[in-house]
Amino acid sequence: MARQSDSKAKTIAAAAQLFRQQGYHGTALHDILGAGGSPRGSLYFHFPKGKEEIGEAALGFVAERVREGIARAAEASDSAESFLVRVASHMGAELEQSGFKEGCPVAGVAVDAAAQSAVLGAAAGAAFQLWEREIGLGLERFGMAAGKAERVATMVLSQLEGALLLSRTYRSLEPIHRAGEALRLLASL
Amino acid sequence: MARQSDSKAKTIAAAAQLFRQQGYHGTALHDILGAGGSPRGSLYFHFPKGKEEIGEAALGFVAERVREGIARAAEASDSAESFLVRVASHMGAELEQSGFKEGCPVAGVAVDAAAQSAVLGAAAGAAFQLWEREIGLGLERFGMAAGKAERVATMVLSQLEGALLLSRTYRSLEPIHRAGEALRLLASL
Repeated sequence: MARQSDSKAKTIAAAAQLFRQQGYHGTALHDILGAGGSPRGSLYFHFPKGKEEIGEAALGFVAERVREGIARAAEASDSAESFLVRVASHMGAELEQSGFKEGCPVAGVAVDAAAQSAVLGAAAGAAFQLWEREIGLGLERFGMAAGKAERVATMVLSQLEGALLLSRTYRSLEPIHRAGEALRLLASL
Repeated sequence: MARQSDSKAKTIAAAAQLFRQQGYHGTALHDILGAGGSPRGSLYFHFPKGKEEIGEAALGFVAERVREGIARAAEASDSAESFLVRVASHMGAELEQSGFKEGCPVAGVAVDAAAQSAVLGAAAGAAFQLWEREIGLGLERFGMAAGKAERVATMVLSQLEGALLLSRTYRSLEPIHRAGEALRLLASL
């Protein structure tokens, strides 16, 4: 049992990284098998519905990992401004460390598959909403009223997602650095 | 000759729409042939290097179309604020009219192919930079100093790209509406 769960978790983590680097359609099942190091039989055992089911699990996995990162950033900060800038810096550091290959781990599925697959669309939407909620909670922690924090969280996530897309495409952290100024404005709303 | 150019232009427009809806890897050559209505031979004649060359041409085509839209929005506006909100509204209207299938026409290639293909990465980057420059020119038109306009244009494009990604995924214009508030702030920087 322990070994099976381990192989399932490895497959999910490997798939999540591939989707992040090359999108959903750009990743074939045999790429996932190769990267996850699991035998083909275990893939069908754990994901009887195939690639879409792996995509859904991968989105759930990265959604929670990013949410935890946002929560940790809030705990480590002493103001809304430093909280948001910390989240942006963390994203920039991950992007740079990956040689500008790893941007948002959900965008790679959201952009190319969410409009055609209801399952993947729902999972991508749930991931973004989870992050919006966690950003909103962080803003409330530093004194922003709940209703305003909910609205500002959407603007913050949009700024982060867009800056990550531009930075990855330009292979330069400049858009993420500039996003810092926009985030400071939003934090003071 | 006229007929050949026409068939080339039709193929580029059809490819651009497919990449926008389902990403680069999610679009097969035969989808482009079917949508463009051109014979297979003409595809190889116009794009001897294949799909990557079509992708590059499609990015150039949408880059200029969107740039013109941004320039028109600036001409039709009487303040930086109304200019930016007009651009966002236009994007939201296109997204809604397409049944939430058509978001940013460059993001679908930038996210899933730009990290692997230097040609597509450069074309996607050139498109985003063209839009940043046109947004910056619009901001200068309403009195913002050039250096500041260049920085703010990056934040504006990030906000727009992120809001479009969230709106498309949620199948709701709410993130684009909320982006309006962030854009007003940026316009007054």
